[in-house]
Amino acid sequence: MHFEQDSSAINSATDYGKNVVESLKKEEKLEQSSVQKLSKEHDHVLKTFRLLIADLCQQFNGGHPGGAIGMAAIGVALWKYVMRYAPHTPTYFNRDRFVLSNGYKAMTFEQLKSYHSDRVDGLCPGHPEIEHEGIEVTTGPLGQGVANAVGLAIATKQLQATYNQPSFDIISNHTWCVIGDACLQEGVALEAISLAGHLKLNNLTIIYDNNQVTCDGSVDLTNTEDVNGKMRACGWDVIDIEDGCFDIEGIVRSLNNARGSADKPTFINVRTVIGLGSAVAGDAVAHGAAFGAADVANMKKTYDFNPEEHFVISEEVRKFFEDLPGRGENLVHSWEAMVQKYETKYPDLGAEFRQRMQGRLPETWKDLIPTSFPETPTATRKASGLVLNPIAEKVKAFMVGTADLTPSVNMAYKGKVDFQHPGLKTTCGITGNYSGRYIHYGVREHSMCAISNGLAAFAPNTFIPVTSTFFMFYLYAAPAVRMGALQQLQVIHAATHDSIGIGEDGPTHQPIELANLYRAMPNVLYIRPGDSEETAGAWIIAIEAKNTPSIISTSRQTLPQLKQTRRDMVANGAYVLDEIEDADVTLIGVGAELSHAVDTAKELKGKNIKARVVSFPCQRLFDAQSTEYKRDTLRRHRGIPAIVIEPFAPNGWERYADAAACMKRFGHSLPGKAAYKHFGFDAPALTTKVESYLKQVRNDPLLKGEFVDL
Amino acid sequence: MHFEQDSSAINSATDYGKNVVESLKKEEKLEQSSVQKLSKEHDHVLKTFRLLIADLCQQFNGGHPGGAIGMAAIGVALWKYVMRYAPHTPTYFNRDRFVLSNGYKAMTFEQLKSYHSDRVDGLCPGHPEIEHEGIEVTTGPLGQGVANAVGLAIATKQLQATYNQPSFDIISNHTWCVIGDACLQEGVALEAISLAGHLKLNNLTIIYDNNQVTCDGSVDLTNTEDVNGKMRACGWDVIDIEDGCFDIEGIVRSLNNARGSADKPTFINVRTVIGLGSAVAGDAVAHGAAFGAADVANMKKTYDFNPEEHFVISEEVRKFFEDLPGRGENLVHSWEAMVQKYETKYPDLGAEFRQRMQGRLPETWKDLIPTSFPETPTATRKASGLVLNPIAEKVKAFMVGTADLTPSVNMAYKGKVDFQHPGLKTTCGITGNYSGRYIHYGVREHSMCAISNGLAAFAPNTFIPVTSTFFMFYLYAAPAVRMGALQQLQVIHAATHDSIGIGEDGPTHQPIELANLYRAMPNVLYIRPGDSEETAGAWIIAIEAKNTPSIISTSRQTLPQLKQTRRDMVANGAYVLDEIEDADVTLIGVGAELSHAVDTAKELKGKNIKARVVSFPCQRLFDAQSTEYKRDTLRRHRGIPAIVIEPFAPNGWERYADAAACMKRFGHSLPGKAAYKHFGFDAPALTTKVESYLKQVRNDPLLKGEFVDL
Repeated sequence: MHFEQDSSAINSATDYGKNVVESLKKEEKLEQSSVQKLSKEHDHVLKTFRLLIADLCQQFNGGHPGGAIGMAAIGVALWKYVMRYAPHTPTYFNRDRFVLSNGYKAMTFEQLKSYHSDRVDGLCPGHPEIEHEGIEVTTGPLGQGVANAVGLAIATKQLQATYNQPSFDIISNHTWCVIGDACLQEGVALEAISLAGHLKLNNLTIIYDNNQVTCDGSVDLTNTEDVNGKMRACGWDVIDIEDGCFDIEGIVRSLNNARGSADKPTFINVRTVIGLGSAVAGDAVAHGAAFGAADVANMKKTYDFNPEEHFVISEEVRKFFEDLPGRGENLVHSWEAMVQKYETKYPDLGAEFRQRMQGRLPETWKDLIPTSFPETPTATRKASGLVLNPIAEKVKAFMVGTADLTPSVNMAYKGKVDFQHPGLKTTCGITGNYSGRYIHYGVREHSMCAISNGLAAFAPNTFIPVTSTFFMFYLYAAPAVRMGALQQLQVIHAATHDSIGIGEDGPTHQPIELANLYRAMPNVLYIRPGDSEETAGAWIIAIEAKNTPSIISTSRQTLPQLKQTRRDMVANGAYVLDEIEDADVTLIGVGAELSHAVDTAKELKGKNIKARVVSFPCQRLFDAQSTEYKRDTLRRHRGIPAIVIEPFAPNGWERYADAAACMKRFGHSLPGKAAYKHFGFDAPALTTKVESYLKQVRNDPLLKGEFVDL
Repeated sequence: MHFEQDSSAINSATDYGKNVVESLKKEEKLEQSSVQKLSKEHDHVLKTFRLLIADLCQQFNGGHPGGAIGMAAIGVALWKYVMRYAPHTPTYFNRDRFVLSNGYKAMTFEQLKSYHSDRVDGLCPGHPEIEHEGIEVTTGPLGQGVANAVGLAIATKQLQATYNQPSFDIISNHTWCVIGDACLQEGVALEAISLAGHLKLNNLTIIYDNNQVTCDGSVDLTNTEDVNGKMRACGWDVIDIEDGCFDIEGIVRSLNNARGSADKPTFINVRTVIGLGSAVAGDAVAHGAAFGAADVANMKKTYDFNPEEHFVISEEVRKFFEDLPGRGENLVHSWEAMVQKYETKYPDLGAEFRQRMQGRLPETWKDLIPTSFPETPTATRKASGLVLNPIAEKVKAFMVGTADLTPSVNMAYKGKVDFQHPGLKTTCGITGNYSGRYIHYGVREHSMCAISNGLAAFAPNTFIPVTSTFFMFYLYAAPAVRMGALQQLQVIHAATHDSIGIGEDGPTHQPIELANLYRAMPNVLYIRPGDSEETAGAWIIAIEAKNTPSIISTSRQTLPQLKQTRRDMVANGAYVLDEIEDADVTLIGVGAELSHAVDTAKELKGKNIKARVVSFPCQRLFDAQSTEYKRDTLRRHRGIPAIVIEPFAPNGWERYADAAACMKRFGHSLPGKAAYKHFGFDAPALTTKVESYLKQVRNDPLLKGEFVDL
């Protein structure tokens, strides 16, 4: 639960929390049962929230009441006693980050009443969304939040190691992530948990809302593992809390211990009861449906509330939280004062830190890009490195990582330092520290991208995370790429080995249909540069796209450097490479196969067919151009047929072309050149295809209005 | 390594293995070092294989030699001593299954020389592929193989519980899965490992080729967890083997122990050295590149082989394996004799078992489908249940499962028994046994689909696995769906909640672009039925598609039962629902929004616009129709513009339509009806869009040849 508007932060949450715990301890002897053990205040607050949640779901007869009710005590412990945040300054840079990975339990306080309503401007959708202040990341698809939290914790570590100075802990925040039973089953979370343990992220705490219930029934229907043992094996500290429904004291104590952990992330296993107090307490049906009016009324009676009243928040509850805004503002003011002193004492670092906080890059970043490239054939994956490496080396915002393909993706820059726990000793001798900006993610593509979303969500554009692996494995990572697009997070995905040109690795590694996903996915720039020059253009666009993830899709194999390509034209999505006024046909070349189009045009010339060539690196960028530009580029309105050349599924090219040399089946394990030849993507075969298409259309004019796969 | 042609199976592998171990033990005292401990025969065989692998990679200067060389002793132990298989009868039904999850180590024996060659008919691609006899599943994308192996082991358990009778263990095979370091990092494998432990699959053994090396360097760069502890916490037995490079005896002993495990799957942690014997032994560079001629020559010298000779297999080595084909055939013959007796003693079960082995369904399966449906509005997710439930109840080939959405996906059939370890006690009281055919996969979408691939790969169509979850979460599972398509495995994915009609759960749960992926993915039938009648058609197609995975994509919300829909016409992909000879426009309705098209046509009538309606459940099925049928259905060749109505990204519809009422952005959290209204998918808004499009085209005739997003 969040208390964004009505609640507030605390000056020194840890000390405050400790005091509360001490005073609660003194009372302990006087009280017996777990309910009585609570102060009356806590008891009333918890009842208020639980009824509020029941009322909210009842209002529109939908939602997920059970989990939120079960987690009420965790919420109070976090937001009243432990979290360092400022409700009136939700963007406070050094705030603790909170991720609700079991996202269906989303609840905000004042705008709550729009929960599940049909108001388009409702601030409280069924799952939390990042565009609302105070929500760090959008969650919902399970497991993503865990990886996001790992990214947030990495961001903190990296900023600390880079900017903190003696007596100037300008970054000191903690990341809290609440998860449910389901998050512990999802692969993306398991990957991230393993990496977080390896990196010894002691500034990360997972709070496991352990209610042992999922949609199908009890968790032991599908999961009987020793969760704590598994987490310990992954390098986490584990704390158990038996009474997570009422024991605010115990929860606060554990959370504070977690914040102080020496060198491990902490897993707090909190036993709760889903739908506590309702007739369906402890049952799966409490998860995803309102309890019904009678049950809610009954809860109210049991809790000594008036069953006729709804959304009741007493003065006492308001008072309980009223200190929080003030504490939060104090926190912000003292931190700002510290940063000001820091800027005086360390003017260079201070200026850089300010720039990072503002999400700005050094003005000169573009000057780091080579103005020209060697004329020798170069793989665009290599060109990617030539473009990005010098930027990544100099510009600290860049956090570059790979899913175990350092030798293949060319993202390792000169003098790179690995992001690692400084104490790590490896067999291969490679070490690192927390100031490092190169992350070995391991063979964990999905969490690599979800962690990068967390890095990007730390603060707008403070980090520009770069991920890298073979393009095909961005299918593993697709749910995370989607969440980045939905949240408008700038993450750049360097996807190499992007077509059948990859060769021997065969159809499991040859993407055929994946570009179709990313070209259709809203707010993603999927760019296939045709040579080094266009690769430079692709990176410039990706780095300037502050609210959009990009995929720069490059070749394994070397490609000729074409004389006509222009980096500035990539921004148009497509442009004319070779113009012919009275052309018979337009050849659209894309990415790694752009030179195939150029070569085919040459061969066609020998057959008296005049082919103009268009380079088409990005559909979405082209769609954004004016109608006039689009028509002039493609010239289909002049009756010149356009044929696209790309060994991918053609779906979607129908918008820009009349026919496609394309792939309607999976690839084959052959050396790259042989694969191109086998599937008819070498210039002689393409020439034949174009000739045959032009003949076909002459014979059957109806084909002109239809799309033909060649 | 496989020895498909030159090697053979053994009659009683376990006993045979034990004898070998005993005899090796006796020799133990005489020999000292780990190399000497081996019989000279083993030593020579291992050297032969290691050199063979080095030669093969050197031949075309590519491939992955290091891992295969490191695993040579594991290969000998498995294929000479432990595995029960028949090289001359590779489809022997009760054979042990072997999965090479770290797929880049693929090696077959006789056809080896085509490895990495440019021969299109090469039998040895860079990664193993299922179409070659003796290869159980295609691997390559890491982690998939582990989940496939879990599916194979489930298949065995289920057949055993269903068909074995006292003294008739007609199914008794074991599944062996070799994995590398990377497989233990991939989420899909971690999910499957957790489920296999829960299910207590004691017929499954993972052999961890622990060479501690990945592409980036040593594994401890990215993974320092306690692997054995993690596996134990997941409910696995763990066996360590220190000397996995030479200790064939120890490996055989451990493998036999694993086969005899009481009630847990077994994890054998075998320490090996990547690229053993080469100059790059133990180094990451040994993984993915040939060693170089000099190094290979040097290995040969060290091993007392002639450096001038290549691909040397001595008579001694051939002799070492020559007993295997004979033993394999003995195994097959005695098993066939047992099955014949079984068929006499249990004629009904026997006939059914034979039918299952042949991958045939009972002739009467179609009669189980309702011939008509209630006229009340019905969600197609509910209709899916009405169609499949009676079939799943009666036809034992169906293994239905869900990723924790039993209450939502309607796949639970009458009298279902859960597939569970019979000793399982759950908090919610639900139990099961191994004869069960309903699998609670937990919130593990990716492994659900990869495990289903394993079930389907056990033998062609012996099982028809059905998976189910929200359509959006088939993005998590996409790499497994793809592998199923590539392997031509019949798995049916029941994908519910398939559009913005899902409502409140918001944009994280509202698929916009996912259909584009599956429509482009080769060999996948993505079908969106428009009502209950079309849902029946979709299931009939999916059940009859023996070599193709299908996705049946259904609505959360209720849909009217249309009078004009026809189940038999779904097979055509699209068909005319409401014909008008002199129509002004064709409206293409798809799936959950088909009725929106029908309603819009009615509203347009009031505005004197004549709209014919086409139902379009499946693009791939439509593509397979004749040109004539396609033209007659769409009538675009008669100059009638076609407008498709689907709240997905339009990419690909350009082939069939001139304009689309579509989604070019993510959805929004609103109740389903409100979401449709908000995005202009209710009949009044659609009517306006159609009117405005027809007007636009009149004003700008060029638009006729271009695609317009409405």
